[in-house]
Amino acid sequence: MKKKLMTPGPTPLPPQVVEVLGQQVLHHRTREYADVFASLNSGLKYVFATHYPVVTLTASGTGGMEAAVVNCFRPGDRVLLVSAGVFGDRFYDICRSMGFDVTKLEVPWGKGIGAGEVMERLTPDTRGVIVTHNETSTAARSDIESIGKALKGTGALFIVDAVSSLGGMEVRPEEWGIDIVVTSSQKALMCPPGLTFLSISQRAMEAAQGNTSRRHYWDLCKAVDFLNKQPPQHPFTPAVNIVMASLAAVTLIQEEGLENVWLRHKRMGKMAREGLRAMGLEPFADERYVSDTLTAVKVPEGIDAQEIIRRMEEDFGIIIAGGNRSLKGKIIRIAHMGYISEGDVLDTLKALEGTLAGLGLPVDEGKAYTAARTIMDIRG
Amino acid sequence: MKKKLMTPGPTPLPPQVVEVLGQQVLHHRTREYADVFASLNSGLKYVFATHYPVVTLTASGTGGMEAAVVNCFRPGDRVLLVSAGVFGDRFYDICRSMGFDVTKLEVPWGKGIGAGEVMERLTPDTRGVIVTHNETSTAARSDIESIGKALKGTGALFIVDAVSSLGGMEVRPEEWGIDIVVTSSQKALMCPPGLTFLSISQRAMEAAQGNTSRRHYWDLCKAVDFLNKQPPQHPFTPAVNIVMASLAAVTLIQEEGLENVWLRHKRMGKMAREGLRAMGLEPFADERYVSDTLTAVKVPEGIDAQEIIRRMEEDFGIIIAGGNRSLKGKIIRIAHMGYISEGDVLDTLKALEGTLAGLGLPVDEGKAYTAARTIMDIRG
Repeated sequence: MKKKLMTPGPTPLPPQVVEVLGQQVLHHRTREYADVFASLNSGLKYVFATHYPVVTLTASGTGGMEAAVVNCFRPGDRVLLVSAGVFGDRFYDICRSMGFDVTKLEVPWGKGIGAGEVMERLTPDTRGVIVTHNETSTAARSDIESIGKALKGTGALFIVDAVSSLGGMEVRPEEWGIDIVVTSSQKALMCPPGLTFLSISQRAMEAAQGNTSRRHYWDLCKAVDFLNKQPPQHPFTPAVNIVMASLAAVTLIQEEGLENVWLRHKRMGKMAREGLRAMGLEPFADERYVSDTLTAVKVPEGIDAQEIIRRMEEDFGIIIAGGNRSLKGKIIRIAHMGYISEGDVLDTLKALEGTLAGLGLPVDEGKAYTAARTIMDIRG
Repeated sequence: MKKKLMTPGPTPLPPQVVEVLGQQVLHHRTREYADVFASLNSGLKYVFATHYPVVTLTASGTGGMEAAVVNCFRPGDRVLLVSAGVFGDRFYDICRSMGFDVTKLEVPWGKGIGAGEVMERLTPDTRGVIVTHNETSTAARSDIESIGKALKGTGALFIVDAVSSLGGMEVRPEEWGIDIVVTSSQKALMCPPGLTFLSISQRAMEAAQGNTSRRHYWDLCKAVDFLNKQPPQHPFTPAVNIVMASLAAVTLIQEEGLENVWLRHKRMGKMAREGLRAMGLEPFADERYVSDTLTAVKVPEGIDAQEIIRRMEEDFGIIIAGGNRSLKGKIIRIAHMGYISEGDVLDTLKALEGTLAGLGLPVDEGKAYTAARTIMDIRG
């Protein structure tokens, strides 16, 4: 059966990306590759909505997170880390591994955070604040705009994990005062997994330049130096085919227009939530903090989450995700990021209605579809 | 014009690899992906000629080198590093970045090293010895077999950079006492760039387990833990499409037979050297240390190396490499690793004869071809 990937990464690749991916490798020191990389670099600045340099490293998003902090901070540095779920905890683990004096500000799962709570916990010696923009495990976002603006003028560097938001939700590094935005290729950016991208402010560059922390592969000063060469280069052999495919993906975003892409994601998020509510389900995330790129929903009492996921795949070919850790069995997660259309969201809602009805839930079939269609029709 | 990549990485991808590469991405937590990864893991053990676990990290070979040492050693540890060229120097830089007390044993460029010189420099407190198997910048190999066997029973861990040899030249981790062999996907293994593979001995695992060095993405204990899960997994999202393509490449090696692959490379190396000698050129590397996967040759006095490279590409579509650093302008390098046949070596020799004749060198056209054909015909 044809499968539809409604999971939070890897997300489906557009055919234009698959086509480029399946090409013979280029040598990374040729003019031809340099042209690809130069175009990718300017495309990345567009999707990051920034004039800051955006570096490309061959690694997963976790590698990008490690690169961000190992350049900005030194062992013993005081760092305030906000965790609202599994990926906040992962960033906490990275910070602990790096020997920072890290304080974890725990946000209840399903909620996000704004400037107020962060500023309350900020001490004069805090060297950095780290926030997950969109917590993939709970489908809740934090208000990085207010946090970044409040942090301007303090001595703290602001690092944002935008792995599951960038390219689908508004992020503005300069205006919002974000020193490093980290994302990875395989989520809203519609690229194959294998690359991580980081935008780097001048302030972050200065911190990195003065930092003697042990790093080599993650050295962002070196990455930016190579990026600034004419033509731009990488310090180490990049994943050439993924770079080539990423250019195709970023070009698609440029063609659709970044703000249109954000609006599409906002619309898909609303469609998902309203559709789910229409079938009597409750979104897991607090409405004030909902994500545009994925939706988590509570599994009704007495229903086996794993069985929903299994039937969705076997009966409808739609792959969705379950909950992690304490949310295992309690929620299901539907991603609607990247190469996903409003039609895919409708299909998923219909399939879920059918699945829940099959599991004996009193679902009024068709209501979710209608609710979601109503939102879909209100364009713009 | 159709191009032929005779460069030391990335090397050309076989059509079977390109085909798999250009497929829709799989989710890395599915059964289907797990089957791919499990097959890759057993295929990697075959090409590494080992029973040790072989981990796959999404990074370049440089990342793999960093992972190897950051797990085995701590800041301040005494490490003996052999450098015979650019890549030995890179490993030295990594070790310095990691804060090891590293002694550099410099080997003249174009030569390799054996057990004698290493054991002479080994002190009782040396925690590790690092050797580049095949120095890509000079096309000279070191005798890692004799070094590894001599190091058995000492307290030193033996780390080998086999980035440009593994899959093309004999490497035997257990028999030769190599604790970590690092390689990358895009050289003799015929995979796209983006992955690094490391075989890890029990002794290296124990060193890693007791090591508190700062690492997260490079944590090999975690990578092996995930590899041992049923089904095998990665701690972080892998470059799924490259993993899929790598399985296709490793399968091709299994079909040809590893010893046959080694013999093919040995034959191609000999063809290249004899062909070059027949046109009056002198291989750069000492004959005792020659590589099977690439050949460096001295550029005749009065001839511009860059012009040879340019004409080879423009007139014949064959891309070869120049020299690095102090060898810039002095040598050209012809790689014959991975998806390269004896026929490709003949084509390259013919093209080089034509190029040199065009540059006014008294080349007896056809002699190189005949010399190389003679070796090619002595199979086995």
